[in-house]
Amino acid sequence: MTVRESILKTAARLFYQQGYSNTGINQIIEQAGIAKSSLYQHFKSKEELLMAYLQLTGTETLARLTQASEHGASPKQKVLAIFDYLAASVTNESFHGCHFLNIVYEMPHDALRVREQVKLQKEGVRNLFHDILQPLENEALANEIYTLFEGALIGHKVHNDPWPVLAARAVVEKLL
Amino acid sequence: MTVRESILKTAARLFYQQGYSNTGINQIIEQAGIAKSSLYQHFKSKEELLMAYLQLTGTETLARLTQASEHGASPKQKVLAIFDYLAASVTNESFHGCHFLNIVYEMPHDALRVREQVKLQKEGVRNLFHDILQPLENEALANEIYTLFEGALIGHKVHNDPWPVLAARAVVEKLL
Repeated sequence: MTVRESILKTAARLFYQQGYSNTGINQIIEQAGIAKSSLYQHFKSKEELLMAYLQLTGTETLARLTQASEHGASPKQKVLAIFDYLAASVTNESFHGCHFLNIVYEMPHDALRVREQVKLQKEGVRNLFHDILQPLENEALANEIYTLFEGALIGHKVHNDPWPVLAARAVVEKLL
Repeated sequence: MTVRESILKTAARLFYQQGYSNTGINQIIEQAGIAKSSLYQHFKSKEELLMAYLQLTGTETLARLTQASEHGASPKQKVLAIFDYLAASVTNESFHGCHFLNIVYEMPHDALRVREQVKLQKEGVRNLFHDILQPLENEALANEIYTLFEGALIGHKVHNDPWPVLAARAVVEKLL
């Protein structure tokens, strides 16, 4: 692992587990086992590190969702496979909510660059549903399924229980 | 207005506009025009103030949603009226997202008392849908509609656009 990768991996773990504001630069340096100057050589600021975290995790998340969808044959099966993946994910002990929603809510309203990156990520999820559903020739469906996906994530966050994921999945089952 | 009400009103405005962590006790004292000792006479800590804010705003929000539902005659019309109210709310310039989701995401995982209060509030919304939908004798529907409601709120937060609220409303229209 390069020094840059090691910094990013440590920052990613801490941002996700404790939140962005609760994570200090010094804690990242200490846990990555590097010098402060080395961190700033690779990332100009804590915000740069956050942007890199969102990009890296974003790519990984989209790859996992795409991979999950490939378990289904029809558009309906593909979408349900994504909700099955989500249902399995939220019961994992290391799951602390959606990486991107956690950040967007932590940031002040005017953190435009970060908010834009989260929006871009979520557009990626919406586009994945759009691509899967294309054969059904119903333009509205992707937005509807995407909104259910987000409702499942946030419902799990609030209630700390998988029922919102299952409720969302049941609606998908009826819609498609 | 009593001193307590004045403190709570000021805190509520600042918590909602700037977030809980970004709001200092001194700013509340200054903007409420009271003495520090007076604040601590009414609220033992900043967390007590947050709990009172969640309770007050929670009661108000549930009353507004219930009132909105009363514009409809049938269960379907009542639920749609709530989504219409939501669609109107999110286009209001003073809307900065759901009060309760904003807080739950700002808090660390172990802020159990606050998280429990947000969950209680959301159970209230779910129960409202449950009561409205009771005549349809379909136990699963309330959870499904509630999950769409949350998806609408969070979708608006991320995309800063009313389309997720309209997508959620369209699903309600198909489900009921």
